[in-house]
Amino acid sequence: MSDFRQRALDYHALPTPGKIKVELSTAAENVDDLALAYSPGVAEPVKEIAADPNAAYKYTAKGNMVAVISNGTAILGLGNLGPLASKPVMEGKALLFKRFAGIDSIDIEVKHRTTEEFISTVANIADSFGGINLEDIKAPECFEIEQELIKRCKIPIFHDDQHGTAIVTAAGMLNALEIQGKDINEARIVCMGAGAAAVACMELLIKCGAQREKIYMLDRKGVIHTRRGDLTEHKMLFANNTDKRTIEDVMTGADVFLGVSGPDLLQPESLALMAPNPVVFACSNPDPEIKPELAHEVRDDLIMATGRSDYPNQVNNVLCFPFIFRGALDVRATEINDAMKVAAVNALRSVSKEPVPQSVLDASNIDNLSFGRDYIIPKPMDPRLCERIATAVAKAAINSGVAQIDEMPSHY
Amino acid sequence: MSDFRQRALDYHALPTPGKIKVELSTAAENVDDLALAYSPGVAEPVKEIAADPNAAYKYTAKGNMVAVISNGTAILGLGNLGPLASKPVMEGKALLFKRFAGIDSIDIEVKHRTTEEFISTVANIADSFGGINLEDIKAPECFEIEQELIKRCKIPIFHDDQHGTAIVTAAGMLNALEIQGKDINEARIVCMGAGAAAVACMELLIKCGAQREKIYMLDRKGVIHTRRGDLTEHKMLFANNTDKRTIEDVMTGADVFLGVSGPDLLQPESLALMAPNPVVFACSNPDPEIKPELAHEVRDDLIMATGRSDYPNQVNNVLCFPFIFRGALDVRATEINDAMKVAAVNALRSVSKEPVPQSVLDASNIDNLSFGRDYIIPKPMDPRLCERIATAVAKAAINSGVAQIDEMPSHY
Repeated sequence: MSDFRQRALDYHALPTPGKIKVELSTAAENVDDLALAYSPGVAEPVKEIAADPNAAYKYTAKGNMVAVISNGTAILGLGNLGPLASKPVMEGKALLFKRFAGIDSIDIEVKHRTTEEFISTVANIADSFGGINLEDIKAPECFEIEQELIKRCKIPIFHDDQHGTAIVTAAGMLNALEIQGKDINEARIVCMGAGAAAVACMELLIKCGAQREKIYMLDRKGVIHTRRGDLTEHKMLFANNTDKRTIEDVMTGADVFLGVSGPDLLQPESLALMAPNPVVFACSNPDPEIKPELAHEVRDDLIMATGRSDYPNQVNNVLCFPFIFRGALDVRATEINDAMKVAAVNALRSVSKEPVPQSVLDASNIDNLSFGRDYIIPKPMDPRLCERIATAVAKAAINSGVAQIDEMPSHY
Repeated sequence: MSDFRQRALDYHALPTPGKIKVELSTAAENVDDLALAYSPGVAEPVKEIAADPNAAYKYTAKGNMVAVISNGTAILGLGNLGPLASKPVMEGKALLFKRFAGIDSIDIEVKHRTTEEFISTVANIADSFGGINLEDIKAPECFEIEQELIKRCKIPIFHDDQHGTAIVTAAGMLNALEIQGKDINEARIVCMGAGAAAVACMELLIKCGAQREKIYMLDRKGVIHTRRGDLTEHKMLFANNTDKRTIEDVMTGADVFLGVSGPDLLQPESLALMAPNPVVFACSNPDPEIKPELAHEVRDDLIMATGRSDYPNQVNNVLCFPFIFRGALDVRATEINDAMKVAAVNALRSVSKEPVPQSVLDASNIDNLSFGRDYIIPKPMDPRLCERIATAVAKAAINSGVAQIDEMPSHY
């Protein structure tokens, strides 16, 4: 067994199994405390909530509690291994929520026969929480699941594999385009992959200025175009009215490549066809669509990002999801809407352009970092992220009318 | 607003809303930790669990995590106020699990249309947890819900309002009968109330030696007898082939009265009809079926218990539920069976008969306590309860073949 594999297993098994635990957030020392915490005192907040459901935010942990929910159908790069096997990932997400944004988070793995059964199970328990982070649910079911849950629930529902990925990708990509002197409105974009992350990334880039007709999405069968008869509802949205059919066709003169597909699927020959000063995001994890070493050999004018921590410019969802929920919870937003997502993109972009705190350099084992082709998105351990993203998201929620309270958070 | 009411509300609102929070149980300081906790390290325990579901107990928090689940249809003495209003009670239960038995516990409130929808919602999320404590679910649905969930889930399912109440009641009652010099096999028992707690108490007393034909259960319409045509399935089990029809009929010569009904429903005149040296449990909360002061005025040969902390002999579920789950989780029991319940009864009984630690006297503001008519069951703050009950329950699980591991817990 490899050293890393054993370390990873030990980390999960010790000192106690798993990565999260529950603690009391209040005193429960003596019989007087218990008379307040449980019978008879607990009847008082019960009556308050029965009279006004919003009192649950005042008297229970609901408002700072996010459920991380999965059915285990698309676990990391491992595929459909079922709900229980996804538990370490979901607990890991809960750990990140707490570690980065102080959000109490608990994982719930759901077994189900039909998509509707998954949806109703989650909808039935949703009121227990302040928000729900959906995770590792395969496409195309994930689209219907998220849309239906948004309709049925009064709390933020956020499929991180779609929107977290999209927000961090958009922030990095817009910064990279700026450095390359390109305009998102003019950029020709190739998206290799047509799953949940691909669709969400393209939708958000369009909200940030990309032109739908300049986007070429590819699935396993090649370019998604209007004359294909085999497209799902979500691929249809990106069917391009074009004669281009191959990866070479669309890469010729392209400004942006986004890979959310699989390892080594981008050939050096295709990369060579791109316009000058391209932006290449090879986000397949752990093995990117093209290795950075190889890409840089092919051409030296590109800006590259991957999903890996051992190369510059890591597209990492932890840069967004804890903080977008922090902002949403802080103003009790009923949903996470496009305005809030765009606000998160802009906050991430602006943090990248400011001097990097020494603590971040230390934690990242890097001597120096400044905005440029090897630093287009912040590092995960950057302590500025929480306050900056959460505040921007909270303001956007208020301004777009989905906040239930108008006071900006004061706890930073 | 009364002082107690305000203190109870403040307790729930401060220092943060609610009573529980989530914390990390492992280090997550730097990028190396995060590479183990999440991608890429998390893939290792995922693969282990995919290969063997039992690995979830080794690599995730599942094995020490109990969900407290309600639909809010029978909240304390307050009735059906809906799932969200029950949240403070469920959080309170989670707090007690942690405080008394070190069990991580999270509350989940479920909305549903049909009973089957509640059952399937809970069954679908059950694998996320090591056990499920059902709470404040009204009769008769609670019987079907618990039975179906036991069938569908491989983890302990325990409706505390039934079985926790029954275990503590049985322990106290058997001790009281012993002090009164009576034998449970001979005792004539009156049970006022025919809800979930009443049925569970009588079933468990029968397992402890009570004779079914010596039990007289009453509902709102009087004695439940074999010629009544209006009985639910569970009341039918207690239909007595008798000519007795009124409370006076059955109280005449009775040895035991158990009230799980409502305030002041036992008249002093009825109490006077009981056999010498009777046992009277008036467990309606907060107002018992007969006030202890009044009962003691009527006769001085009785032993009395209530659900209140301000009288001797409080029947309090916290004496059992944290510890029966502790024992069940420690040996990974697949269910909580009758042998484990009886083991909990016996452990509770035996703790009552031993000298009381000074810390318990201090916490209870009492100078002296010893086994006798004013001390038939232990006090909630007794530190011996966890080890004693959990060990007895774990042994019973092993001996009755429902434990998945045979090692006795070593953490006491």
